[in-house]
Amino acid sequence: MTTRRSRTELPLRVLPLGGLGEIGKNMMVIEYGDDIVVVDAGVLFPEVDMPGIDVVIPNMDYLIENADRVRAILITHGHEDHIGAVPHLLNRLNIPVYAPRMALELIRQKLKNAKLLADAELNRVEPGEVVQAGGLSVEWFEVCHSIPDACGIAIDTPLGKVIHTGDFKIDHDPMIGEPSDLKQLARIAGDGVFLLMSDSTYAEEEGASESDRAVTDGLFRAIAEAPARVIVSSFASQIARIQIVADAAEAFGRKLAIVGRSMIENTKLARELGHLRIPDDLLITPAQADSLPDSRVIIMTTGSQGEPSSGLVRMSRDQHREVSIQEDDTIILSANTIPGNEVGVNDSINDLVQLGARVITNRQTMTHVSGHARREELRMVINLTRPQYFIPVHGEFRMLRAHADLAVDQGVSPENSIVLTDGDVLELTAESAEIVDQEVAGHIFVHGLGLWDEAGNVVVERRSLAREGIVTVSLAIDRKNRRVVGEPRLVSMGFVHAADAESLFEDTKDELQPVLERFSSERLEWNEFEDLIRATVGRYLTRRTKRRPLVIPVTIDI
Amino acid sequence: MTTRRSRTELPLRVLPLGGLGEIGKNMMVIEYGDDIVVVDAGVLFPEVDMPGIDVVIPNMDYLIENADRVRAILITHGHEDHIGAVPHLLNRLNIPVYAPRMALELIRQKLKNAKLLADAELNRVEPGEVVQAGGLSVEWFEVCHSIPDACGIAIDTPLGKVIHTGDFKIDHDPMIGEPSDLKQLARIAGDGVFLLMSDSTYAEEEGASESDRAVTDGLFRAIAEAPARVIVSSFASQIARIQIVADAAEAFGRKLAIVGRSMIENTKLARELGHLRIPDDLLITPAQADSLPDSRVIIMTTGSQGEPSSGLVRMSRDQHREVSIQEDDTIILSANTIPGNEVGVNDSINDLVQLGARVITNRQTMTHVSGHARREELRMVINLTRPQYFIPVHGEFRMLRAHADLAVDQGVSPENSIVLTDGDVLELTAESAEIVDQEVAGHIFVHGLGLWDEAGNVVVERRSLAREGIVTVSLAIDRKNRRVVGEPRLVSMGFVHAADAESLFEDTKDELQPVLERFSSERLEWNEFEDLIRATVGRYLTRRTKRRPLVIPVTIDI
Repeated sequence: MTTRRSRTELPLRVLPLGGLGEIGKNMMVIEYGDDIVVVDAGVLFPEVDMPGIDVVIPNMDYLIENADRVRAILITHGHEDHIGAVPHLLNRLNIPVYAPRMALELIRQKLKNAKLLADAELNRVEPGEVVQAGGLSVEWFEVCHSIPDACGIAIDTPLGKVIHTGDFKIDHDPMIGEPSDLKQLARIAGDGVFLLMSDSTYAEEEGASESDRAVTDGLFRAIAEAPARVIVSSFASQIARIQIVADAAEAFGRKLAIVGRSMIENTKLARELGHLRIPDDLLITPAQADSLPDSRVIIMTTGSQGEPSSGLVRMSRDQHREVSIQEDDTIILSANTIPGNEVGVNDSINDLVQLGARVITNRQTMTHVSGHARREELRMVINLTRPQYFIPVHGEFRMLRAHADLAVDQGVSPENSIVLTDGDVLELTAESAEIVDQEVAGHIFVHGLGLWDEAGNVVVERRSLAREGIVTVSLAIDRKNRRVVGEPRLVSMGFVHAADAESLFEDTKDELQPVLERFSSERLEWNEFEDLIRATVGRYLTRRTKRRPLVIPVTIDI
Repeated sequence: MTTRRSRTELPLRVLPLGGLGEIGKNMMVIEYGDDIVVVDAGVLFPEVDMPGIDVVIPNMDYLIENADRVRAILITHGHEDHIGAVPHLLNRLNIPVYAPRMALELIRQKLKNAKLLADAELNRVEPGEVVQAGGLSVEWFEVCHSIPDACGIAIDTPLGKVIHTGDFKIDHDPMIGEPSDLKQLARIAGDGVFLLMSDSTYAEEEGASESDRAVTDGLFRAIAEAPARVIVSSFASQIARIQIVADAAEAFGRKLAIVGRSMIENTKLARELGHLRIPDDLLITPAQADSLPDSRVIIMTTGSQGEPSSGLVRMSRDQHREVSIQEDDTIILSANTIPGNEVGVNDSINDLVQLGARVITNRQTMTHVSGHARREELRMVINLTRPQYFIPVHGEFRMLRAHADLAVDQGVSPENSIVLTDGDVLELTAESAEIVDQEVAGHIFVHGLGLWDEAGNVVVERRSLAREGIVTVSLAIDRKNRRVVGEPRLVSMGFVHAADAESLFEDTKDELQPVLERFSSERLEWNEFEDLIRATVGRYLTRRTKRRPLVIPVTIDI
């Protein structure tokens, strides 16, 4: 028993690499002894102060440094904020991926696009199945969420069960999949779990979430009342919503055209997996829709978040290849606006109204319910699992704080209900919880092949460029004879209208002349000279324009 | 009577220069015969795709071109989106300003800061007073709104009354000023008005707005329950809210510290105008607050919109000169988040919670009511005035559309309920309404002394710079001998990490070498040569980085 005992005395280590403090990103590292497993590898979509950035991924340096101990990546469900960074991870670390069905297929597509599929080890897991990851036993359990095949994960450790809920809500009557199986969770929890990590997105909202099915009434009514064509926009992965719209199409004698690559692919996938029940003859192409009376057509597409390349936004700008908005179109936004997307969504609604359409959002009719548990459901999960330790995950700081406080209200001792931030290494034993270390973690900005950390001067430079523009001052220098040859040349972007630039820059060159002469006469040091150019030009331009462009001297040795 | 008759046959002309299609901006031109009056001159705050821009003002070219006919600027109330562009207007056009008391004093401060006060002709108007602007009689009538001394404007024309409501709601029990005086509006309307222009901000919201006073309960309860210090943030001009907080301070034995220049100035002004009733000994400085027990202090400041330079945001970043957030502070956001500001507001709430404070928003307790009328009140105004023509103003396109439809429901004939866009010149006679012309109108971006229109390449350039960064390729050219002298020099911003730049740019120069040789050997035209540099460098960098920076060749003649 000695071996077993000493193993029990090892602490469990928990390390969020990019998943706390903000909605959407998610990568949680769980370690016991020599075994490391990673729960999810998601992306975050860039915010407005990250210009040009494609996506944001977690910093994975810690995993690379400890590559020999990383046993597997365990996926909860197929949303981008949980699987989007899998290609980036596998690109640097060849480890097996375990994922439920829909998530696995979406990951397969991603890896194929990234030309990483050949070397990847993909394993499909079913709820209730137990997988061995090094010395750790891992079991997935079904939860309800806004994508099919969503799961939570239970890890058996010598210290007790570790439960990660993934994103979830309790739904007793979901459109797709089974009602929330609280019995399975109760069985896994047994006499209480060691650590619970639970979805905090709606930890500030009292009450319980509505069932997916609650949307049916609202959507059916809106579609029944529509005088002509109906266009419904939602997320491409919101399969339950596609089912409701298909059911409505059938009920009201309309045909359904799915528009847009991602939604078409996801519909195909969900039909293959048996999640969508749509008769073949219900589905039509946009071209076929054009030849039907408007009152017999429903179009379903993406764009509920105002994404510039989405179907609905291109329609709102009258730039869609297949669908033109018409007077009397009824457009239903079957989604809530994700924080940060308000301006884009609002702009596209205005554009659609200006084209003559009527737009119905969640404000007028119930066209959407969230996939995240509210406080009443969160309480239920805490009570069902009676965890010794609690870590709120997946939420902004204030939501994590609210969830940690809720756990204390439900009986977790205050010192055991712990809000972590990215990079915190938390060590848990049966007796104590302690943040013992701080690892490199947080955002990596991805643009093309560029990967830049949060201090990344590229993004910082871009912010300055955007605010003030840039002026370069190019000079040819005969270094040997210490003189400037020819005229300096000033070029600007984002600073001054072309029409005003010429005379402004001529005046600036006059202002610069004494500096050029000092370079020859006073034998200035090289960096002194460049500093003086920068200061002189900067000061003069600020005086003339009341703006402060970046001024970059560029010297050419001839 | 002939003269009178022919005058009556002239049309009324209405021209929005920047006030429709979007919340917040506002400048409406009204013309009859030789007389032009301008209602309001507001600014719009820049959106995220307008980097570096200070404010956005309406394009005033039409007024400058018709300067000899412009009789006056008529102000409805003192919010920035109605008075912010007055200095820009007076800078180009010396016309008298007529404004209610609070608005006039705020304009006076603006003109003083802009050194335009000496030449300005400022006229204070009282509700019920009639002012002559050329041949037009103008009367202001009191309305309720979220700033004291808000008014609507009625203009007497030979065709009948023209009424512009300004921003308003119906409030039978306001904190400041008199209850909405529907009698005055009824008297002005008489047997029906020719044209009604009415606030559309909440034209999509059913029901009626709550009274200002409704906030009292929520704020009193939140302050009563606060265990320690209370910090309330709102708009600097929200004088009624300052009154409620002052009343609460008195009721609960606390003292009130107003923090931040704009709120201090507005408090002083509102006390002088008799709008605020605060005993002198209730007010303390932040320094005095520090020496009182926390439970005896309320601090009031700006920052409810997450503005970076505001009091609350600086506190949330622990960068405020006078106030440091403490554990157990209760922070009340007494405002709704204006669309577009969600991310900033959210970030500051997270930061405050991370510092240990509790944050109460309008979602938990009624801490704010809007100053805009909802549909029930809008119906009332339409019915009271029974206009022949109706133009919805002050709202995004979908709100204008909803308001125009509402007017039709209330009996305005469909062809007489008209949604305009900026620049439309609408001519109205007793018989007909027609858009007869399109004038230059819309946004002017202001940055420092720069004024750029919407096609302004500066802002467009900034967006490109921010997305992709810039690479300049500087070359010294001996034009006579057709050769490149010395080495090309590549400099970038916002494109590549300094650490990666050197080797990337060395490789790029190798790639460029054949082009430089062709310049000498093939006697390329100058622009061909520059195009070839741009294309070669651009293609190579895109291949290496999967990004597309702006590439700017800079040639120096030596």
